[in-house]
Amino acid sequence: MLTGEMLIGGVGVRGTAGEIHGFNPATGESVPPIFGAGDAADVDRACESAWSASDHYRETSLVSRAAFLDAAASEIVACGDALIERAMLETGLPRARLLGERDRTVAQLRLFADVVRDGGFMEPRIDAAMPERRPQPRGDYRQRHIALGPVAVFGASNFPLAFSVAGGDTAAALAAGCPVIVKAHSAHPGTSELVGRALQRAVAACGLPAGVFSLLFGNGADIGAALVAHHRIAAVGFTGSRAAGRALMAIAAARVEPIPVYAEMSSINPVYALPAALAARAATIGRGFAASVTLGAGQFCTNPGLFLAIEGPGIEEFEAAAAAEFESTIAATMLSSGIHAAFCAGVQRLSHHERVKVIARGRTGAGANQTPPALFATDAASLLDHAVLQEEVFGAASLVVRCRDATEMGDVAERLPGQLTATLHLEEADVPLARRLLPVLERKAGRIAVNGFPTGVEVCHAMVHGGPFPATSDGRSTSVGSLAIRRFLRPVCYQDLPASLVPVAIADGNPLGLWRRLNGELGKH
Amino acid sequence: MLTGEMLIGGVGVRGTAGEIHGFNPATGESVPPIFGAGDAADVDRACESAWSASDHYRETSLVSRAAFLDAAASEIVACGDALIERAMLETGLPRARLLGERDRTVAQLRLFADVVRDGGFMEPRIDAAMPERRPQPRGDYRQRHIALGPVAVFGASNFPLAFSVAGGDTAAALAAGCPVIVKAHSAHPGTSELVGRALQRAVAACGLPAGVFSLLFGNGADIGAALVAHHRIAAVGFTGSRAAGRALMAIAAARVEPIPVYAEMSSINPVYALPAALAARAATIGRGFAASVTLGAGQFCTNPGLFLAIEGPGIEEFEAAAAAEFESTIAATMLSSGIHAAFCAGVQRLSHHERVKVIARGRTGAGANQTPPALFATDAASLLDHAVLQEEVFGAASLVVRCRDATEMGDVAERLPGQLTATLHLEEADVPLARRLLPVLERKAGRIAVNGFPTGVEVCHAMVHGGPFPATSDGRSTSVGSLAIRRFLRPVCYQDLPASLVPVAIADGNPLGLWRRLNGELGKH
Repeated sequence: MLTGEMLIGGVGVRGTAGEIHGFNPATGESVPPIFGAGDAADVDRACESAWSASDHYRETSLVSRAAFLDAAASEIVACGDALIERAMLETGLPRARLLGERDRTVAQLRLFADVVRDGGFMEPRIDAAMPERRPQPRGDYRQRHIALGPVAVFGASNFPLAFSVAGGDTAAALAAGCPVIVKAHSAHPGTSELVGRALQRAVAACGLPAGVFSLLFGNGADIGAALVAHHRIAAVGFTGSRAAGRALMAIAAARVEPIPVYAEMSSINPVYALPAALAARAATIGRGFAASVTLGAGQFCTNPGLFLAIEGPGIEEFEAAAAAEFESTIAATMLSSGIHAAFCAGVQRLSHHERVKVIARGRTGAGANQTPPALFATDAASLLDHAVLQEEVFGAASLVVRCRDATEMGDVAERLPGQLTATLHLEEADVPLARRLLPVLERKAGRIAVNGFPTGVEVCHAMVHGGPFPATSDGRSTSVGSLAIRRFLRPVCYQDLPASLVPVAIADGNPLGLWRRLNGELGKH
Repeated sequence: MLTGEMLIGGVGVRGTAGEIHGFNPATGESVPPIFGAGDAADVDRACESAWSASDHYRETSLVSRAAFLDAAASEIVACGDALIERAMLETGLPRARLLGERDRTVAQLRLFADVVRDGGFMEPRIDAAMPERRPQPRGDYRQRHIALGPVAVFGASNFPLAFSVAGGDTAAALAAGCPVIVKAHSAHPGTSELVGRALQRAVAACGLPAGVFSLLFGNGADIGAALVAHHRIAAVGFTGSRAAGRALMAIAAARVEPIPVYAEMSSINPVYALPAALAARAATIGRGFAASVTLGAGQFCTNPGLFLAIEGPGIEEFEAAAAAEFESTIAATMLSSGIHAAFCAGVQRLSHHERVKVIARGRTGAGANQTPPALFATDAASLLDHAVLQEEVFGAASLVVRCRDATEMGDVAERLPGQLTATLHLEEADVPLARRLLPVLERKAGRIAVNGFPTGVEVCHAMVHGGPFPATSDGRSTSVGSLAIRRFLRPVCYQDLPASLVPVAIADGNPLGLWRRLNGELGKH
């Protein structure tokens, strides 16, 4: 069933620049088939194919583009259990989580189909001509947002479905009208091929140009670098490490024509437990926190890597409850040997740091690529003095930080770098303190959660999965939720176009029935 | 009346890092007073002052922020003729143009006051909680856009009012809720101080923190570089040369925390005369084109620097009509000796290029810093072979390019770099060709005009004054029109916030009466 081929402009292409092997992280064994890695010529072919499809694809009708997204969703569902089994094999993730992730991926494509049908993403605006205006008459001005052009998407290791081949960036870019070229993550090549072929079938079934979607495999950083540097690429979506993200940002900025890079890189997602909340429900918070940290072997970008509390009632109880949960958690298989090795190194770094003490370790597991979860503690002054303690440890580890008082907690909030999320635990009595922290957290995070935990990123209209640098490369954008479509669009103004040339979204009489701004007023006019 | 001081956090500060002299470009003489240039310590003070105002200012009510923008407009009007006289003295621009520019600047501030009152710029979104959802209940998610933080704005030389101290970027940033620090252009320091003091009075009258607005003077690139590098600055607005714009982009990208730079740099604004239009009204097009090129000594960023026509009926008539206009136009005083020198060099470069012939020169003027307008001609193959012919000559010069056929015209359209504008002259018979060109022009320009000329950038809701690199640093944005507010905003998501903490724009019951997306549906709910 799997061929090990890339998909370039609708054709299966065997890469000849080396081999890529999928691995079963639970056993460390490689699993067939062997995938062929592509080279710069393959990148070029995929980019030219995407380019040749681009002007046509971006002007497909809303109805047909939405139908394509729905078809892509259905094709993924139609992959059935074979897709789930392959993803389990390549990632070690449990079936239930992959079923959930598959459903999320499919729902995401369907949400974007709805977004396309709605048409509001084009943000049509019309300013009517004023031929009688003095001293100068005013022309007729119309504006819509159009697709940027071919988008390069990098599959993430930690979500083999929802942030990979047909993940959030792919769905948003296709919805915007951009052809997509995915660089598959080498940690799950078979899963990538299955999803890639599902997208390819949807492209063909909808009669779209084959260049609308391509899938590349590659070893090392070269193929990704070639993709981002290619002059046909108009934007980049990436989820991964800060080092890789910054490298892509540098390549994009050094191009003859710089392009936007949307890189989601790293975040430690601080949780602030305010005094009344900690006093009222320390054990509950501790158990919930531990569950969030250890969820899915800790491999969520929204994993809470920092827990801040003010010295006072409840903090010991919190630590005891959290520690008990950590200690009863068995090490789970991590996504890959590379991630496992990095996690071990991070845990070692914290374990041996002079200002850090170990509160709890989980139980050792039996399989490969497993390391028990770990809970550490330090104080706020140490956290602020030692930047290394502010670095993400990707996996089920977290650091409890004691603050002397509310002022010191505020200092920590102010001095931490940009984050995907910030979380507050609070009771009514904490509201005045929360009100002081909120403006700081707004500046520092894309999402602020109260009395919950940051893992779990709802796919909805109000979601922001983003945040100031270094959480992402561009805090003005989100990679999850319907607003993500905007990252792949730009506005164009049309002045005095004859009716025969005006794009339908901004045509007289509103033939598509869109919400439009007419002389500044929103309405279906 | 003028002091030569900078305005930092509400206080007049005499810069001590050298002197800046305003010059009368019509005579080449310096005009008092002498302005003191600031240094890095002044930058730091302005940035800290802006920072300390930022959290408060961004949460001012819509009503009070709009009132501040209206007050700023009124204060500029209240400067009266003194402002116009000073701007005439420093720029050599005629009174009528400066009166128009002043009115535009004031109207722009008032438009943004309306945008603020409308509140739609926050794009509120609410996804209601679904406590009964299975397998996971859904929380309550709300989103609004917030201000990025303090913005650095660089005044432009060519619009001493509309793109300077209280120009488009300043108005958009203040509307978004960002404090602004303006680096005044040294070509019109007195005009800058007058407008800066008007803004300062509006800040004080509205009871806002003084850090909401500061004005710096500086020699050379150092002060601007220090400003863009300062860790309190969250975004940059710039209008000027490509070299300076790229330098600011590089500084911003190299920061510990990279920030967005909105640089409007250069554009040659191609005009495409399609065959039927040229056959039908060559002389009219020629005269209109010449008027657009020579408008305001050619010092518009939307000046049409390229005119493309297909060999055939009308092209000689067009050239003759345009040449006659050029030849009857007297050289006007340019904005500064630097701009004048660059224009002379550009004209020389084209005059001596082996593939270029001179069609027409204007008449010599009597004053300083004057060079007659110049019209050149070449063919499409030469244009494409010689990148130097695609470079902007800032001033009243343009290049007529003959294309063999429609295919070659399409090649030119495809191969030109990004532009602020592209213009088509067409008749009904040209529509099929226009339809082929339009997708290319959409990719290449921020605004597409038909049967007009690109000079004249309407301040309205549908305007896009932007375009792909190298016209600007970021083709996803506009610097003119109400959509410009978006460049200084970013989205934040709020999950399960108690009512006592929810920002009013996304509060239950819609207390501000805003358009909001509730579960994806737009409405005033």
